[in-house]
Amino acid sequence: MAPGDEKSQEAISSIVIIIAMQAEAMPLVNKFDLKEDQNSVFPEGVPWVRYHGTYKDLHINIIWPGKDSTLGVDSVGTVSASLVTYASIQALKPDLIINAGTAGGFKAKGASIGDIFLVSDVAFHDRRIPIPVFDLYGVGLRHALSTPNLLKELNLKVCKLSTGDSLDMSPQDEATIIANDATVKDMEGAAVGYVADLWKVPAIFVKAVTDIVDGEKPTAEELMQNLAAVTAALDTAVTQVVDFINGKRLSEL
Amino acid sequence: MAPGDEKSQEAISSIVIIIAMQAEAMPLVNKFDLKEDQNSVFPEGVPWVRYHGTYKDLHINIIWPGKDSTLGVDSVGTVSASLVTYASIQALKPDLIINAGTAGGFKAKGASIGDIFLVSDVAFHDRRIPIPVFDLYGVGLRHALSTPNLLKELNLKVCKLSTGDSLDMSPQDEATIIANDATVKDMEGAAVGYVADLWKVPAIFVKAVTDIVDGEKPTAEELMQNLAAVTAALDTAVTQVVDFINGKRLSEL
Repeated sequence: MAPGDEKSQEAISSIVIIIAMQAEAMPLVNKFDLKEDQNSVFPEGVPWVRYHGTYKDLHINIIWPGKDSTLGVDSVGTVSASLVTYASIQALKPDLIINAGTAGGFKAKGASIGDIFLVSDVAFHDRRIPIPVFDLYGVGLRHALSTPNLLKELNLKVCKLSTGDSLDMSPQDEATIIANDATVKDMEGAAVGYVADLWKVPAIFVKAVTDIVDGEKPTAEELMQNLAAVTAALDTAVTQVVDFINGKRLSEL
Repeated sequence: MAPGDEKSQEAISSIVIIIAMQAEAMPLVNKFDLKEDQNSVFPEGVPWVRYHGTYKDLHINIIWPGKDSTLGVDSVGTVSASLVTYASIQALKPDLIINAGTAGGFKAKGASIGDIFLVSDVAFHDRRIPIPVFDLYGVGLRHALSTPNLLKELNLKVCKLSTGDSLDMSPQDEATIIANDATVKDMEGAAVGYVADLWKVPAIFVKAVTDIVDGEKPTAEELMQNLAAVTAALDTAVTQVVDFINGKRLSEL
């Protein structure tokens, strides 16, 4: 969205925050005093949950893809993230998408446990299609909305994000993550970015580091150990981002 | 969909055929004499294309995710496949989804170039989440609609399908494909199956083998070499499937 565009002349009024895990979403739902939808904007049968309400001058929607209806675990990953982003934009026509969540970080690129990053670019690392041009499609690079004032005000770190559907990292994933120049890896961001771009809705990404991928500890164990503390830091950062956004135009971010 | 369900008491009237590549879709579009939508049922800006028309007693929709608007290549893979399946079911409320396309085959499991398979089960092979229950969510096993009469009539081979977003195969992918007991691998099936299951729409999968994954030749090269001939065989098989479906109830397939 360029400064000359019509939408960017008005203050942001409606935002959709996509959060993959319930443990990440609920503190923010409480913080913003949001209520669960009684009449879902989503089709019958899907597990997706919308919490919404007014916070300052903003209509805030937190969308959580919900628990898998058979297995009861959070519907993580790119397929669910794509679908809820699509359905949320379709139903709610937000001015801005925020994808917030935990991520793995690379200490070789300067990440530490608890770091909060604002993302400049998103790309996939597990869509290898070794045919010219299809290879670029697979990587699926998208730029986040540029937010220089937000960055300066909150003193956030900036980095690139790489997305894949596995929590672990194969050697092939690692090679692509390095090629993507990513400091953090997650399981949703590039899918949210792809769908936001389809609809031409600007998107930003706030990622908090729960585990060091190129460290000694197994990812799953480290993730579980740090989830609660890092989620608290993430939620503080998202609140600061929302407070900064309040009353501003897209071109002022 | 069980035989006792309301929908299955009536003859199938509307089908959606999801096909990822234009080269696979166009011969069938011509065969069924379908026309491209003038007023898209999809949102403005998405590249998805719908061809539709009446063939015998069926309303047939072929949905192709279109060319990536920046790169100009077919929008292959699970994210696009999920989105078009979702949007197609939402807009068209079909009685049945058919996902048709080319696939890689494993000679160790009996696949040869040009083989046409009807799929019994779909699962993912590139969503490794080594946390209990999340691991099963990642695999995402779904059953295709059981079609014993269709199988018998057309004398088709049956197998399991494994889906991932890479055209090549890493050792980690291979281990999961073996665990999934799959004879063919593609880049869309399990995503189509996941979304169809969300909406409780029955789905079947027709896959034609363009390359042998556990053979000597590089996948991309072999795929390109065989695409035209195998697509012709795929289109013949899909036409036979559609002819068999015509006039029947779901419970008669």
